[in-house]
Amino acid sequence: MYASKGVTVWFTGLSGSGKTTVADFISEELSRKGLACYVADGDTLRSGISRDLGFSRSDRSEHVRRAAEVAILFAKQNFVVLVPIITPYREMHDFIKKRHAEENLAFVEVYVAASLQACESRDPKGLYKLARGGGISHFTGIDDIYEKPLSPDITLDTAYKPPEECADEVISFLYTNKFI
Amino acid sequence: MYASKGVTVWFTGLSGSGKTTVADFISEELSRKGLACYVADGDTLRSGISRDLGFSRSDRSEHVRRAAEVAILFAKQNFVVLVPIITPYREMHDFIKKRHAEENLAFVEVYVAASLQACESRDPKGLYKLARGGGISHFTGIDDIYEKPLSPDITLDTAYKPPEECADEVISFLYTNKFI
Repeated sequence: MYASKGVTVWFTGLSGSGKTTVADFISEELSRKGLACYVADGDTLRSGISRDLGFSRSDRSEHVRRAAEVAILFAKQNFVVLVPIITPYREMHDFIKKRHAEENLAFVEVYVAASLQACESRDPKGLYKLARGGGISHFTGIDDIYEKPLSPDITLDTAYKPPEECADEVISFLYTNKFI
Repeated sequence: MYASKGVTVWFTGLSGSGKTTVADFISEELSRKGLACYVADGDTLRSGISRDLGFSRSDRSEHVRRAAEVAILFAKQNFVVLVPIITPYREMHDFIKKRHAEENLAFVEVYVAASLQACESRDPKGLYKLARGGGISHFTGIDDIYEKPLSPDITLDTAYKPPEECADEVISFLYTNKFI
């Protein structure tokens, strides 16, 4: 296993946009090349370190803050850290970047840009249906806002491109910019 | 770099008892042997993931809970995770063990047993002096309790043995019990 210099790749986008799928493809591909990769996905963190948090604005912000701190810990151990978390508010995008800069860690922001229509028509976990029916509240895109990142390093068109291709786009970016 | 199967080694003991010193020696020695090690020390976590927490009983418990969750994430990546954190309350010891058991992760509890007198006479960071003078409150051993673990896997006599020797004791235990 060889290590990168440590980099966090943060995937922001709506539920069902393909964040985790793309992150998993990247992790598999880079692990095959011998790089230490870590996917910090929202569900895993919510069942552990964020177990006490719900989906209010302040809880979501705190969840993202903790995810960023976990990412920093792994990036400092020279991992390629992949974080597929909705991250709906712009102030969070700013915070995450600032924290990585403070720690002198490389950071790449990926906007997973599938539209609400595309995500809702896929609805892989049936969550949009639940949210439309009122079974879930604070659901991003339905009754909670999603603020697109202002200047992402990469924008992935996951509604039209297959996830493998999107993963390759990110991997190329990481090599071209010498993050790995 | 080769990986262990993942194990958390948790050091509980008073401030100044030598927890971090011993953990650092172990990390250096095992890293030299090619094992992936991670020292999750309290100060680093308090400047990041626990930044919002103070030293009240509930904040200390939450800090330990988050440290345990971070340890679990690294142990799942096959690290030897070394956690030198005071961990003053017995209910925390139980919680940490339970969480590792739930995740099917190996866990070793180390009691760093230097007495209050020994720790206070060393006072490496000058914290006991501050606490005695009222400059810090909720200081373990002075105006906050420390509950010894009931059945630690290892007890280290850091008041009388040099830290290198204590580190070797832990390393031998890890090999003997096939944790690494």
